[in-house]
Parts: sequence; C-alpha cells; structure tokens
Amino acid sequence: MAEERFMRIAIDKAKEGIAKDQEPFGACIVKDGKLLSVAHNTARADPDVTAHAEMNAIRMACKVLNTIDLSRCEIYATFKPCRMCQEACERANISKIYYGAGPEDIGSPPLETSIQIEAGFLRDECLEMLRRARQ
Amino acid sequence: MAEERFMRIAIDKAKEGIAKDQEPFGACIVKDGKLLSVAHNTARADPDVTAHAEMNAIRMACKVLNTIDLSRCEIYATFKPCRMCQEACERANISKIYYGAGPEDIGSPPLETSIQIEAGFLRDECLEMLRRARQ
Repeated sequence: MAEERFMRIAIDKAKEGIAKDQEPFGACIVKDGKLLSVAHNTARADPDVTAHAEMNAIRMACKVLNTIDLSRCEIYATFKPCRMCQEACERANISKIYYGAGPEDIGSPPLETSIQIEAGFLRDECLEMLRRARQ
Repeated sequence: MAEERFMRIAIDKAKEGIAKDQEPFGACIVKDGKLLSVAHNTARADPDVTAHAEMNAIRMACKVLNTIDLSRCEIYATFKPCRMCQEACERANISKIYYGAGPEDIGSPPLETSIQIEAGFLRDECLEMLRRARQ
C-alpha cells in the first residue's frame, strides 16, 4: 500500500531526527505518487522555531516544483500538524493530510482545518516514537 | 516614539519587497529596544509558501539570538499576522504583536491569539501600501 510506504518514510526521517537530538517528528510530501520531499523537525539544530518537519517538507517541495502552489500534493506527518503547519498546508493548497498520532492520542483537543484528513495512520508506531523521545 | 520608528522600519522593508515584486508585507522583531531582524515577504522569490515577512523575521531573530525562545521580543508587522504567523509568534514566546492594517480593515474577520496585540498602528500607511500593490 503506497500510503503506508510514504508514512514509513516520514517515520524513518523522524527517527533520523531523533538520533540527532531533534524533536521526534517527520513528514514527507507526495504528488501523483511521487515523493517530493522528506524532512524531520530541525528547530533545535537550526535554531529556528518555525522549522517543524511539515514546514521543512513544504519549503523543500516548493523548491522542487519551483512554485508556492502545492495543489494535488499530499503530506504525511507522523504527528498531526500544529496550527502553524496546518495553515501552511492550506496556503500551499495541499489536498490531503495523513497523520499518525495526534493531540487526541495524548489528551489534547484536535484543531480544525478545511483540508481532508486521514487520521491515526500507523498511529501506534508514531505514538511510540513520541513516547520514547519524551522519556 | 520608538514603536513608530520600528513600524516604519517594517513599512520600509515592505516597500523594498514591493519593488522586487513581492507581496506587500514587512515585519521586524525588537528585543529590549534593539532591532533584531527585519524582513519582507519572499514567498514568490524563494519560492516558499511559508516565507511570510513575519516568518522570515522570526527565523532571522532565532539565528541572531541562537535560540528558539524569543521571550521579551516584540514583532511589528505591517499587516495582521495570519494564523500560521500568529502560531509561530506564540511558539516563539513573542510577547507582543504590533500591526498596522488588518483583516478588519478589508472586511475579513479577525483571528484570535493569546499574544498581546496593538492594532491599527500606523494603519493608514500600511493599508495604503496594500491597496497600491493590489491595484
């Protein structure tokens, strides 16, 4: 299943970030079944408070396609994108968000967005990664 | 008045961006009365859909202070920061947002934020700049 493969790419990238002492989040962007970008959170490394995995992946995808219009692109995120990242997805015209674990899995209220969302996608793996990093 | 001087720096930067065919928005970040960063929107130039003036200024300020914690910093924005930028301000612990024109000046509903806001600061100049760019 292609969707699972892409989420695993995001998970692997998050693990790469964890190994570099970064926040435990990964994301990748796909268009027409083709991987455009993959990134982990680099906020602490850069340092840049805006450098969430999703933001990094969006910025890279813009460069790859040489546009700020990511229509027909889908984003896979190991954790539900925060309000900043969701707004970036909306402004980029990203068509769908797949995410693993989310605020609802750790007792926080979910955020609203107009983008189609596939939640709990490989949730357990995404959540486990977060739990380990938080220990 | 120091606040006015800083807003004028943001306005001048926005105008610099307009001259380069960028969206008509500027922002600067100040800490303890000292200018840390100033930026205009560079979304079209980069291209990077996340490169709003506020985001660029936040990213630069993180680099200048070598931290993702912008506590005690204030941001001056020629237009009210969008939801993405507001969330970035909140995550960065920015203490106050000064803005010129806002959605309320062009008939759109305002957004909520937990950060202290000084609205309509040099509004007319900020709004005029937007109007000219939109013509």
